[in-house]
Amino acid sequence: MTETAPTTLQDRVRAFVERGSTHNAILGVIIFNAITLGLSTSATVRAEIGGTLTLIDHAVMTFFVAELGLKFFAYGLRFFANAWNIFDFVVVGLGLLPDRAGLSALRGLRVIRAMRLLSVIPQMRAVVQALLDALPGMGAVIVMISIVFYVFGVMATLMYGAAFPQWFGTLGGSLYSLFQIMTLESWSMGIVRPVMKQFPMAWLFFVPFIVITAFSVLNLFIGLLVNTMQSAVEEEAEAEFEGLRDLVRSETDVVGAHVLDLHREVKALRADLAALKGSGS
Amino acid sequence: MTETAPTTLQDRVRAFVERGSTHNAILGVIIFNAITLGLSTSATVRAEIGGTLTLIDHAVMTFFVAELGLKFFAYGLRFFANAWNIFDFVVVGLGLLPDRAGLSALRGLRVIRAMRLLSVIPQMRAVVQALLDALPGMGAVIVMISIVFYVFGVMATLMYGAAFPQWFGTLGGSLYSLFQIMTLESWSMGIVRPVMKQFPMAWLFFVPFIVITAFSVLNLFIGLLVNTMQSAVEEEAEAEFEGLRDLVRSETDVVGAHVLDLHREVKALRADLAALKGSGS
Amino acid sequence: MTETAPTTLQDRVRAFVERGSTHNAILGVIIFNAITLGLSTSATVRAEIGGTLTLIDHAVMTFFVAELGLKFFAYGLRFFANAWNIFDFVVVGLGLLPDRAGLSALRGLRVIRAMRLLSVIPQMRAVVQALLDALPGMGAVIVMISIVFYVFGVMATLMYGAAFPQWFGTLGGSLYSLFQIMTLESWSMGIVRPVMKQFPMAWLFFVPFIVITAFSVLNLFIGLLVNTMQSAVEEEAEAEFEGLRDLVRSETDVVGAHVLDLHREVKALRADLAALKGSGS
Amino acid sequence: MTETAPTTLQDRVRAFVERGSTHNAILGVIIFNAITLGLSTSATVRAEIGGTLTLIDHAVMTFFVAELGLKFFAYGLRFFANAWNIFDFVVVGLGLLPDRAGLSALRGLRVIRAMRLLSVIPQMRAVVQALLDALPGMGAVIVMISIVFYVFGVMATLMYGAAFPQWFGTLGGSLYSLFQIMTLESWSMGIVRPVMKQFPMAWLFFVPFIVITAFSVLNLFIGLLVNTMQSAVEEEAEAEFEGLRDLVRSETDVVGAHVLDLHREVKALRADLAALKGSGS
Repeated sequence: MTETAPTTLQDRVRAFVERGSTHNAILGVIIFNAITLGLSTSATVRAEIGGTLTLIDHAVMTFFVAELGLKFFAYGLRFFANAWNIFDFVVVGLGLLPDRAGLSALRGLRVIRAMRLLSVIPQMRAVVQALLDALPGMGAVIVMISIVFYVFGVMATLMYGAAFPQWFGTLGGSLYSLFQIMTLESWSMGIVRPVMKQFPMAWLFFVPFIVITAFSVLNLFIGLLVNTMQSAVEEEAEAEFEGLRDLVRSETDVVGAHVLDLHREVKALRADLAALKGSGS
Repeated sequence: MTETAPTTLQDRVRAFVERGSTHNAILGVIIFNAITLGLSTSATVRAEIGGTLTLIDHAVMTFFVAELGLKFFAYGLRFFANAWNIFDFVVVGLGLLPDRAGLSALRGLRVIRAMRLLSVIPQMRAVVQALLDALPGMGAVIVMISIVFYVFGVMATLMYGAAFPQWFGTLGGSLYSLFQIMTLESWSMGIVRPVMKQFPMAWLFFVPFIVITAFSVLNLFIGLLVNTMQSAVEEEAEAEFEGLRDLVRSETDVVGAHVLDLHREVKALRADLAALKGSGS
Repeated sequence: MTETAPTTLQDRVRAFVERGSTHNAILGVIIFNAITLGLSTSATVRAEIGGTLTLIDHAVMTFFVAELGLKFFAYGLRFFANAWNIFDFVVVGLGLLPDRAGLSALRGLRVIRAMRLLSVIPQMRAVVQALLDALPGMGAVIVMISIVFYVFGVMATLMYGAAFPQWFGTLGGSLYSLFQIMTLESWSMGIVRPVMKQFPMAWLFFVPFIVITAFSVLNLFIGLLVNTMQSAVEEEAEAEFEGLRDLVRSETDVVGAHVLDLHREVKALRADLAALKGSGS
Repeated sequence: MTETAPTTLQDRVRAFVERGSTHNAILGVIIFNAITLGLSTSATVRAEIGGTLTLIDHAVMTFFVAELGLKFFAYGLRFFANAWNIFDFVVVGLGLLPDRAGLSALRGLRVIRAMRLLSVIPQMRAVVQALLDALPGMGAVIVMISIVFYVFGVMATLMYGAAFPQWFGTLGGSLYSLFQIMTLESWSMGIVRPVMKQFPMAWLFFVPFIVITAFSVLNLFIGLLVNTMQSAVEEEAEAEFEGLRDLVRSETDVVGAHVLDLHREVKALRADLAALKGSGS
């Protein structure tokens, strides 16, 4: 669909941001920025060209803000209809958070905009899309695991919170500890054995938790796999089915054509006979 | 199936507990209780509204007991024919256990009734059902792993129990330690290396144990996966088969119809001929 | 095949050991022995009825030796043609090893005869058989992993053996440590970080090792899974194929029958015509 | 394609290196060398026959260099067209690196030439080939995981580098630590809990990292599995398809032959009729 005459400014801006060269320029800036961000982790490099790096960072930030501004101008509210635009918006926005002394940890957040590599390279978009597409099929199991986590989290806090505040002192802390236990990291030597010193039956709480979550995650995985496999096999089966359908049709067409030929022959024969009858009478 | 006139009280109670709004009310109470239970884990909240929370807890408990009592009245012994009712019964019952000082750890058990979220939300029931449906197919392998655990547990207790009572002092302790080793948590640094200091050949016991259990669990998983996959593929194959069957039938029907037409034509021809013969003679 | 008259003693013994009740008696003894072996792990129980347990143990041992002796008498050298008999022979034989003070650790080995549960219960035999059937398909990958282990083991011993004799002092020790690293147990905090303190590039050795073995094991697993799946799908496909074959044959048989009917009709017609011609001339 | 007369020296050398016995001799030397390298890890053996081992090592090295030299002479630059030759070249070349005091750690590298077992045994080549064939399908996901690693690595260095230089001091160190966290080794007890002491919200960084990488690796694995499975099923389906095609063709051929027979009959009938008409008129 060629837009023959982009008369309004909005149309011209849209044509500009959709151009391939614009896209490549943005990709180039993102890669360049990813490299300078990487360089800025080195104290030596910061000491040498720290000022330049900060300058580059501000320039890139300005570039990104301008880019998103242009896109927003070009598409209006439809800008937010595309999930990737929202991703870019959030990821760039996080870089604009104030860089105060008390929030020095937030400084690292602006690096997250290098994640735009995922949103700008089409192949990466496809991979991320495939990952996200798998999520809905996992919904019910994830809710189930969440309920199990919540209930076990509350129980752990009430039962072991007083004795082991470092692990189960708060509901949040318990959920974190249960996540650690689910990943099997130091679950026994680090947590359950110490707990069992005071509550000898604690294994009745933790071992079932491990078995339940492991089994649920396994089923999550199996469900995911069967879904993926099924849709792959389905295409396969459909192609095979169509091949066979075409074959059966063409073969029966051949026989059918023979039969029709024969029919014509018999009709001719009957006409001959009628003629004979006419001539005979 | 509309019950036009529930004459007995039992019928009316059954109609009441089966009503959608009753179900929603129960679900609402469970969610509300899950939240208040979560809140009660916070010392601050307990200090503020601890009395209210205890009151709510007792009210909810009474509500649940009344609910199950009504259901039991409505269904009689058939109440226990439904596994989910048994689940609710046990889970609510655990909350009625005495709350003594010496059993303060049991206090957490009453939280388990929030698990009723799994039994009340239909989608959650389906997920749990799917997980349980996978169990029978795993039966034989689970029995096998249990035998291996038992034998290795007895052996570990007899061989290493005296030297390492903290891990292999009792049969129960050994089984727990072997479970930990099966999950690969600190198996070497935490347990086997110390044991090998005293029994240098201990790896001949533990490494095969790890390999055997890992391989068994793997096969458990593969069996589960193949079963799930197979039933999915089976449906697929059945649909394909039916499609092809219909196709082959309709195609041969077409040819068959042509042949029958032809047959009729030939019969007519023969009748013509007979007529000709009659007129000719 | 009913043996009508077992005349020789050997035949009669064979008939005896193959009898169902004999089999059940053996199973009963194994289960009973598994329980007494379990009881013997408890110091309290040993203090109470230790003498009885030792007595039972000797009786069971005698029973097993007699059973295998009878089987050996019944089958002769063919006894060793059955892998399960060899398994029973080894497992019972290990229990006859001398029980000296210096070898107290071997005491636990006699428990291994409880593993006979796997060889005596038919369902367990099937599970173990299924596990063993999976092995040949894994052969090539296992050899490959073994080569990788050996080469990395020798390298680790030569490179890190002098500095870390507790992990890489001997080839055997290195192989054990590499197995631990392959299972990811404390690989970084426990081994690689300490090694990197002295050899900063050690990650170039260990990270590739982890990636290679993880990827190989993954492929082992995928190969196993695809094999299992394929044979399951193959049966499915064969059944589908046969169904379609029967359908196509029966359908074409119907059309073919119609055509043959028609042929008969035409032949009759031709005969009529010939008759007409004869009468006409 | 038999080369009847290898006139040039190059042809004769090529014929020699391609001979089966030459191949077996090389394989024998590699296995022999693998064993002597294994023996050289033992201090006792080195003390006894260290000189002999060194001599053997130099001899084997010379043999390998000569072998590759001959191959290079035989094939010229085409030598490098075969990836296995490059593998042999690199693996042998690493053994020629200087063996200085300061680089004693490099000494172990020469052992890597035992990896030639993988390139010389055809079955091993097939396994490695199968592993490598799986890589391209994983390309996009690996790039995605790399981007995630890089971005999280830069962020971790900027946010936690100052407080925890031992883990996140440099970008390289952060990437190593993130790899460790991805393998779940001591991620919580060893790294995240200490970090959370100072940065209580650090779990917001690390838990999503674990979930994202675990989910990506899972999808990598599923993709691999589905690909392998699909090509296996494809062959299966193709065979089934061909079977059905042949069946449908032969069946319709039978019916078609009947119809043609019939056609011939009808034609003969018509000829008869024409003859009758001729005779009748």
